[in-house]
Amino acid sequence: MTENGLGHRERVLNVDTMNPNVKRIEYAVRGPIVQRAVQIEKELKEGVKKPFTEVIKANIGDAHAMGQKPITFFRQVIALCVYPDLLEDEKFPEDAKNRARRILQACGGGSLGAYSASSGIEVIRQDVAKYIEKRDGGIPSNPDNIYLSTGASDAIATMLKLLTSGEGKTRTGVMISIPQYPLYSAALAELAAVQISYYLDEDKCWSLDVNELRRAVKAAREHCNPRALCIINPGNPTGQVQSRQCIENVIRFAAEEHLFLMADEVYQDNVYMEGCQFHSFKKVLFEMGSEYSSVVELASFHSTSKCYMGECGFRGGYMEVINMDPEVKLQLTKLVSVRLCPSIPGQALLDLVVNHPQPDEPSYATFIKERTANLHILSEKAKMTEQVLNTVPGIHCNPVQGAMYTFPRLTLPEKAINAAKEKEQAPDMFYCMKLLEETGICLVPGSGFGQRDGTYHFRMTILPATEKLKIVLEKIREFHKRFTEEFS
Amino acid sequence: MTENGLGHRERVLNVDTMNPNVKRIEYAVRGPIVQRAVQIEKELKEGVKKPFTEVIKANIGDAHAMGQKPITFFRQVIALCVYPDLLEDEKFPEDAKNRARRILQACGGGSLGAYSASSGIEVIRQDVAKYIEKRDGGIPSNPDNIYLSTGASDAIATMLKLLTSGEGKTRTGVMISIPQYPLYSAALAELAAVQISYYLDEDKCWSLDVNELRRAVKAAREHCNPRALCIINPGNPTGQVQSRQCIENVIRFAAEEHLFLMADEVYQDNVYMEGCQFHSFKKVLFEMGSEYSSVVELASFHSTSKCYMGECGFRGGYMEVINMDPEVKLQLTKLVSVRLCPSIPGQALLDLVVNHPQPDEPSYATFIKERTANLHILSEKAKMTEQVLNTVPGIHCNPVQGAMYTFPRLTLPEKAINAAKEKEQAPDMFYCMKLLEETGICLVPGSGFGQRDGTYHFRMTILPATEKLKIVLEKIREFHKRFTEEFS
Ligand SMILES: Cc1ncc(COP(=O)(O)O)c(C=O)c1O
Ligand SMILES: Cc1ncc(COP(=O)(O)O)c(C=O)c1O
Repeated sequence: MTENGLGHRERVLNVDTMNPNVKRIEYAVRGPIVQRAVQIEKELKEGVKKPFTEVIKANIGDAHAMGQKPITFFRQVIALCVYPDLLEDEKFPEDAKNRARRILQACGGGSLGAYSASSGIEVIRQDVAKYIEKRDGGIPSNPDNIYLSTGASDAIATMLKLLTSGEGKTRTGVMISIPQYPLYSAALAELAAVQISYYLDEDKCWSLDVNELRRAVKAAREHCNPRALCIINPGNPTGQVQSRQCIENVIRFAAEEHLFLMADEVYQDNVYMEGCQFHSFKKVLFEMGSEYSSVVELASFHSTSKCYMGECGFRGGYMEVINMDPEVKLQLTKLVSVRLCPSIPGQALLDLVVNHPQPDEPSYATFIKERTANLHILSEKAKMTEQVLNTVPGIHCNPVQGAMYTFPRLTLPEKAINAAKEKEQAPDMFYCMKLLEETGICLVPGSGFGQRDGTYHFRMTILPATEKLKIVLEKIREFHKRFTEEFS
Repeated sequence: MTENGLGHRERVLNVDTMNPNVKRIEYAVRGPIVQRAVQIEKELKEGVKKPFTEVIKANIGDAHAMGQKPITFFRQVIALCVYPDLLEDEKFPEDAKNRARRILQACGGGSLGAYSASSGIEVIRQDVAKYIEKRDGGIPSNPDNIYLSTGASDAIATMLKLLTSGEGKTRTGVMISIPQYPLYSAALAELAAVQISYYLDEDKCWSLDVNELRRAVKAAREHCNPRALCIINPGNPTGQVQSRQCIENVIRFAAEEHLFLMADEVYQDNVYMEGCQFHSFKKVLFEMGSEYSSVVELASFHSTSKCYMGECGFRGGYMEVINMDPEVKLQLTKLVSVRLCPSIPGQALLDLVVNHPQPDEPSYATFIKERTANLHILSEKAKMTEQVLNTVPGIHCNPVQGAMYTFPRLTLPEKAINAAKEKEQAPDMFYCMKLLEETGICLVPGSGFGQRDGTYHFRMTILPATEKLKIVLEKIREFHKRFTEEFS
C-alpha cells in the first residue's frame, strides 16, 4: 500500500470496462493498413531505404490530397466571408462578393464565428431546397425538411441513431449492401443495432437485385426488426450507378416491407459511363405517384466532400427527409441541438455548391471550365483504371460507372491464402500489406468492406493524378504477377 | 385497401418506435424559449406590433452573434489558407503568411479541402501540446495524447461514450454538477448512462464541496457504477472559478473513489474577479506528485468557441488525455475515424489560438490589443451584471468570477408559482417566457440547467454589447418589479 492509499490497481477505463459497442466497431478505411502507410512515410523521411520513394494513398476518397485543385469561386467566397476586409479588394469578382455578403448577412453578428441554428442557416437550407427542386425537375422541396450536417457522415449516423430501438428480437435491423462503405457497419455496431447484409451482384456490374433484398429481409425477420434500408448510389466501394428501374424496384420493396429508406447520394455528380445517369431516390419516388410518395419515408444525403469539388476538409453536408413524422422531426432538431451546429465554413461552402455561379455572372465561365475539367479527368481515370486492371491475369474489374472507386476481384493462389491464414490475416489484407511494403501503394482490402465468402478484392480510388495513376496501375500489375508467381 | 396494397398505416419511424434514449434528452439552451424567440423575430419582421423592436438573445454563449469582432490575425491566416493566391498580396503581414504556409504544408495536397488524420493534423497536435506545456509551467504534454475535435461538444460526448457500459446496477454513472451545462445530461440520456447529480453551493459562490461529492457518489453506488466525474471550470452556467485547493480536493476524491476525471476548461481565459485565477486540472494533478499524477485518469477539454476569440462557428477544439490505457487510446482513435476528421478550418483556427503571434512578430501588437480589449470588456460586463442585478429586490446574483454567464436566484411570489403550475410550466420558465413576450429579452430558465428543488433562477450571458447590456439589465429590473407586483 502506498502513502495515499491508492496502491496498484486497474485503470477506471480499460478495454474490459470500456463501451463494448465501441470495441465491436471495425473501420478498415483508416485501419491497420493506413497506419502502416503513415509509419512507412515517416521511415522514408528518416532515410530508411525502401524499394520506392513515396507512399501513394489510393485508400481514401480525398481528391485534394491527391492533387485536385479547389474550385476558385468557392474559395474566393469563403475567403471573403472569413476576412470581410477583402470585400474592398478589387481583385475579387462581384458575384463572389455578392455571395459572401449574402452568407454573412445570414450569420449571427455577420460573422462565420457565430453559432447557427442547429439545423443550419435558414438561407442556406432554402438554397439547398431550390437546388434539389431544380435537380429533380421541379418536384418541390421544403427547406423545413433540410438539415445541414458535419459532412454526410454526421447526418447518416444521426438518422441511424433515431431509428434504433428495441431489444432482442425487436431490436432495429438495418439493411446495408455488401460490399459497403464502412461508416454504416461502424455506426450500427456503435448503436448495437442489427446489421442486415444484402449482397450486390458482382457478375452484373454490382447491381442490386430485389430478390436478394427479399432473401435478406426474410432471414432477418427471424431475429430482429428490420426497419431501414440503406442504398449508396453511385456506389462506394463498387462504383456502380443504379438504373431508374432498379430504384423503382427498391422503393416498391421498401414500401411493401415497411422500411425507412436511406439514400446516400454523395456521388451524385460522379457518373462517367455512357448510358448511365444519376436518378435521385426522391425524384423516382415522386414520379411513382402519390401512392408511394405520400407514404414512403426517405432520408437522402449529400456532401461537399465528393463530386467535382472534393472539399472534404470543410465537413459540409445536408440531408433531406421526406414523409418524416412531424414529432420525430422535433426530436431530430433537439438531438442535433446538443452539438450546437455544423461548422459554418462548411455550411457556407455547401451553399456555394447548391448555388453556384449563373450564366449571367462574371465567374460562370471559369466555374464551368473547372467543374467540367475535374469531372472529365475523373471520367478518363475511371476508364483507364478499368482497362489496365482487366489486362492483368487474375484481376477482374467491373466498369467504374460512377463514384471514385474500383473494387476489382482478385484470384489468389491457394498458397497465399494459407500464408495469410498463418498470419491470422484476411487473404486480401495479406495481399495489400505486401503491396504496400513492396511498392508504397496503399489500398484497402476487400475484407474491410465485406464480400462474398471465398472472394477477395481490394478497393482503390481513381483519384491519383493521371500520370501517377498510370504508374500505380503498372505497379499493381507487376506486383500481382510477382505475387502469383511467388505463391504458385 | 389501395391499389398498391400499402393502405393506411403507421409510419416506420414515429415517436413510439424511435430511439427512446433520444426522446429522454432535454436541451434547454435551444429549447422552447429559443424557438419562441425565433418566432417573435419573424413576427417583428412581418410588422407585428410588440412592446419592443428587437429580440436580444442572452441565452447562448455566442460572442460574435452579440457583436464581438474576430481577432484580425486569426482571420487573416484562415483567409490565406482558404485562398492561397492571397499569399502574393502585400496587404497581409508576413507572420500571417508564414503561419498559413505552415498550416497548408501540413494539409493533404496543401489544401484545407483534404481530410486530415482522424485525431487531427499532427503539426497542430504538436502546437497544442506546446501550448499546454507553457500554460502549465513546463509540465510535459505529449502530442499523442491530444485529439482535435469538432468543438469541445464532440470530444466530451466521445469521452462519455467510451466510458459507458454495463447494465442495471453495473451501468456507468457519471457525476455532473447541478446546475450543469446541458450537453452533459443530454449526452448521458442519449447513452442511457446514469446521471449522478452533485450540487454546487450557491451560498458559497457556487463553489464545489467535496462532502457533497461524497454524498452523491455514496447514494449512487446503490444503483449504478460511478465511473467518471465531470467538472466545468470556470463554470457554466454559474460563473465561478475554482480555487487551487478545491481542485486538489476534487482530484484526491477522484483518486479515492476510482473515478475518471473530465475537466471542461473551455473558459480557461475567462477569469475576471480579482484574487481568482485559472488552474488547470492537469497542472494541479502533476503538482500533487507522482502518487497522483501516475494514476489519476484525466481528460481535459478546450475549444475555439469561448475565451477572447469566441469563434464558435469554426467548431474547433481538442482534448488531452492523461493516463489513458494505451489499448483504449487505439479504440478511441478508431472511434473518431468513423467520422473521418474534424473540420480543417476549425483545426487551423485552433492552431492560431495555441500558437498566436509572438513579441518579435509584426502582428503581435494588434493581437495583444484586441485580446486584451475583448477580455477587458467582458470583465467590465461581468461586474456590471452582478452590480445591477443585485440592486433588484428579489434577485440575488453571485459574483461573475469567470466564464460568460450569471445564474441569479429569483424570489418568485406564490401566486406566480401557482400560475406556472396551471400552465404545466416550471416557474422560472413561466417567468422567462413572460419576460420574452414583454421585453424581447431571451434568457434560459434555471430549470433547464438543474437547481435545488424550490429554487428558481435564470441564466443570462454577459455578452450583449455594453450599452445593450445596460438596457437589458434595466429592462429585467423593471420587469421583475412588475412581475412581483402582478402576482402579489
Ligand atoms: C458513400 C459515402 N457516404 C458518406 C461519406 C462521408 O463523407 P463526408 O462525411 O466527408 O461527407 C463517404 C465518404 O467517403 C462515402 O463514400
Ligand atoms: C461548459 C461548456 N462546455 C462545452 C461547450 C461546447 O462548446 P463548443 O462545442 O462550441 O466547443 C460549451 C458551450 O457553450 C460550454 O459552455
